[in-house]
Amino acid sequence: MSARYHVFIVSDATGLSAETAARAALAQFDLDRRDTQLHRHVGLTSTADLPGIVREAKAKGGVILHTLATADWSKRLSTLAQEHHVRTLDLLGLTVQVFSEAFGVTPRETPSPHHRLDAAYFQRIEAMEWTVRHDDGRAQDHLIEADIVLIGVSRVSKTPLCIYLANRGCKAANVPLVPGVPVGEQIFTLPRGRVFGLTIDAQVLLEIRRNRVKQLGGSGGEYASPAAVQAELAYAEDIFRRGRFPVIDVTGRAVEETAAEIERVLERRAGRARR
Amino acid sequence: MSARYHVFIVSDATGLSAETAARAALAQFDLDRRDTQLHRHVGLTSTADLPGIVREAKAKGGVILHTLATADWSKRLSTLAQEHHVRTLDLLGLTVQVFSEAFGVTPRETPSPHHRLDAAYFQRIEAMEWTVRHDDGRAQDHLIEADIVLIGVSRVSKTPLCIYLANRGCKAANVPLVPGVPVGEQIFTLPRGRVFGLTIDAQVLLEIRRNRVKQLGGSGGEYASPAAVQAELAYAEDIFRRGRFPVIDVTGRAVEETAAEIERVLERRAGRARR
Repeated sequence: MSARYHVFIVSDATGLSAETAARAALAQFDLDRRDTQLHRHVGLTSTADLPGIVREAKAKGGVILHTLATADWSKRLSTLAQEHHVRTLDLLGLTVQVFSEAFGVTPRETPSPHHRLDAAYFQRIEAMEWTVRHDDGRAQDHLIEADIVLIGVSRVSKTPLCIYLANRGCKAANVPLVPGVPVGEQIFTLPRGRVFGLTIDAQVLLEIRRNRVKQLGGSGGEYASPAAVQAELAYAEDIFRRGRFPVIDVTGRAVEETAAEIERVLERRAGRARR
Repeated sequence: MSARYHVFIVSDATGLSAETAARAALAQFDLDRRDTQLHRHVGLTSTADLPGIVREAKAKGGVILHTLATADWSKRLSTLAQEHHVRTLDLLGLTVQVFSEAFGVTPRETPSPHHRLDAAYFQRIEAMEWTVRHDDGRAQDHLIEADIVLIGVSRVSKTPLCIYLANRGCKAANVPLVPGVPVGEQIFTLPRGRVFGLTIDAQVLLEIRRNRVKQLGGSGGEYASPAAVQAELAYAEDIFRRGRFPVIDVTGRAVEETAAEIERVLERRAGRARR
């Protein structure tokens, strides 16, 4: 089966912002994911590919989202697309124009240092490495170094959340909560606002664990029993209460959404601290 | 010191696409990073916050990028901003409109399932967990499960690249190359195009390692000596040649850029395979 809706991402850099915009916009339509296809033409180093891309977009009835920083390329693509009646959106150009007008600054019009290898970049790389080294409770002795510590029972998406946060430059550690295994007292001594409790609907967690067990070809036992799940969640709640940690319910939430919620809590607190 | 250029991200979802667009556009100006500030107002659940945001943007001479899916909110924000002479850009609205016209489909105009918890989502979560479990050579027995395997000497950014790729849904393993430590033969038996060699300029690597050693408070020794670095890179080259692996030079490149290059190679190959 071939897709019906084609989006062409064209960029002289990584194309990441056009891709992110495309995904957000596509989520606004009731389309089957298999019906949509992204075609990435990124890292372009000349305009030689543009005519072919426009022709393909035309043939597929597709749309072109582009982020071409190079002065004339964006114009060239728009002209070509117009000739072929292909719809385009110059995402970078529009955003740059608004900034330029509002701030009274002139853009450089070259794709060069899209991602600057500056202190902030290396801090982000450091956060990624730190996070991997400290996954799943392995950070117990280094929790004080973490920007964020996530705690919760098994299968509340602690690890994927850490990876997502690390990718955004945050040293994220996670500590599993298991009844009968004492949680390190250090967790209660960390600066306020650094620890977040993750919780989830018991029925949903049960479902997730049953699927997990099936995947691994096991029988489940305690791990995927209603009584155990209830007990574990209650145990976690106790820890959250004792530490007075903010609690986030991840039920039905994607990691992006949970991460946004965590960042929102942090920003609210930073806002209050500034006042 | 407070920033001079303020960008307000306003969204009823995660605000990720506006944030990505803002960063790409800001990179187009010669601004000191400390001179720019993003203000994230995301996950909005009512319009009650909009007047305050617009007032703050006005006071700071800022710009508003928004991705409000809810039908009337976007209009309300635009009206408010106009009244206060604040520049705005409706990134989601513009993109949705282009898709809607090109595809002849109607948007839902609600922020609801921005990130669908479907099979593709769970595959991505699985990739994140897999990648963390298999960092730094720990995947040797499971390499056949990986989507991408990165090999190279120490400090060519294998781990951050894996994290970045995992975040994009790719099971990424990495295998360090160390002279004297035999590399598993399995690497040479994997399907073509799955293994990538990472290399880097010797002088730059030396610099990175010296900084690393300084950070860790050590003296360096062999690890940060020119002769060792040369020998290691030569050893890696041999492996790359033997496996006929595509080689990517990461010198001066951000992980986003290297990842885009890897994805480009994979897509070119997929394109050829289709023909």
